[in-house]
Amino acid sequence: MSSESDKRAAAQAAAALVEDGMKVGLGTGSTAGYLIAGLGERMAEGGLSGARFVATSFGTELLAREWRLPLRQLNDADIDGALDIAIDGADEIGPGWELVKGGGGALLGEKIVFSAAERVVIIADGSKRVARVGERAPIPLEVVPAARLTVSAKLESLGFDVTLRAAERKSGPVVTDHGNLLLDIRTTEPIDAVALERDLCAIPGVVECGIVVDVATDVIVAEDGAVTHSTQPGE
Amino acid sequence: MSSESDKRAAAQAAAALVEDGMKVGLGTGSTAGYLIAGLGERMAEGGLSGARFVATSFGTELLAREWRLPLRQLNDADIDGALDIAIDGADEIGPGWELVKGGGGALLGEKIVFSAAERVVIIADGSKRVARVGERAPIPLEVVPAARLTVSAKLESLGFDVTLRAAERKSGPVVTDHGNLLLDIRTTEPIDAVALERDLCAIPGVVECGIVVDVATDVIVAEDGAVTHSTQPGE
Repeated sequence: MSSESDKRAAAQAAAALVEDGMKVGLGTGSTAGYLIAGLGERMAEGGLSGARFVATSFGTELLAREWRLPLRQLNDADIDGALDIAIDGADEIGPGWELVKGGGGALLGEKIVFSAAERVVIIADGSKRVARVGERAPIPLEVVPAARLTVSAKLESLGFDVTLRAAERKSGPVVTDHGNLLLDIRTTEPIDAVALERDLCAIPGVVECGIVVDVATDVIVAEDGAVTHSTQPGE
Repeated sequence: MSSESDKRAAAQAAAALVEDGMKVGLGTGSTAGYLIAGLGERMAEGGLSGARFVATSFGTELLAREWRLPLRQLNDADIDGALDIAIDGADEIGPGWELVKGGGGALLGEKIVFSAAERVVIIADGSKRVARVGERAPIPLEVVPAARLTVSAKLESLGFDVTLRAAERKSGPVVTDHGNLLLDIRTTEPIDAVALERDLCAIPGVVECGIVVDVATDVIVAEDGAVTHSTQPGE
């Protein structure tokens, strides 16, 4: 089975967790795209007419509108900052469900939506499982433009290689949905994900980092067509 | 002596620390305003023609331009993310030089500039000294608009009273120089400033918080006309 069909299988399993009337956070990226399609099909069939959705990015908002999912903001009165469930992909999933997110540049919106959700379901194909996070995927940081050099210098002093994420369809760097820049960092050293998330967030000018710990309540991984739904790490 | 003349006395003592050729971070607020005036007078006399300045806010930028101080960005080549000195006021100064900043809403720019500076000089009148920070001044947080309710709920669960800072000369809330909102938080409980700064920064959607620890290298306080310049807490 291809990784694409595995992504779709994991996304479909997660879409089945959504019930009519729920408030649902929609992740960003290719796996989340399959989720939105699956929810859109259920919406078209009339099975989710009372559900409301919150997007984690401009890209997800556009896709959800195409699928006619009714969108709300977290601050809307009928959401009131609380979601029943959020479903999203991840760039890497470590053994303790520490995650790396942000390849799609939506880490800030994703982490805000996760913080609002009672249940956070991570969906992935098997290639996203790693022995330690940061092993293959760089860790992205969303950084205020004025702090680009000060944050880079701090990260380099901590032993990271730092790359300003360049855009491909515009001149210069990628600008996030929130008007910031992305620094992608790498290290060959093993990282302590819990401590590193806090250290990175504490650097002035770092808006958010792509490490997510102690947040996922469910992980659904599809590998060669077999879907595994776990509700705690190590299952 | 009035508090205004004490602010001016502290600011003048700090302005005297600036030497020609230095790269200087300029704080925000009424005390920093006296600093900028003092530096502007020295610039007009020709004594600082080789100095360059980085502003922590739009307000400081406007004032520095009035005084003809040559402004740079932290990312400019001749600054390269590093300053010799930054000078700024504070809303509160605790016994260990833990600070509360952000009454002027410039906490993000201030903390970025502090992180670039070799020497960070805090200037204040005596009324800013407190037995514990958070005693009188609320602690401001700069928050991404989409996260207003999720961050408020988290702060309330931590025991804080939370107020969205309202604007007075526009409708609705204050919008910061970086396009975000400000939440002012209060508690009657004593706080652990070091731990709280990290806890607050780790909340998704919190861009920066107004607690500053382990950053000041000098504190200059003027009280009833007497200026005290300390280079370590407890002096």
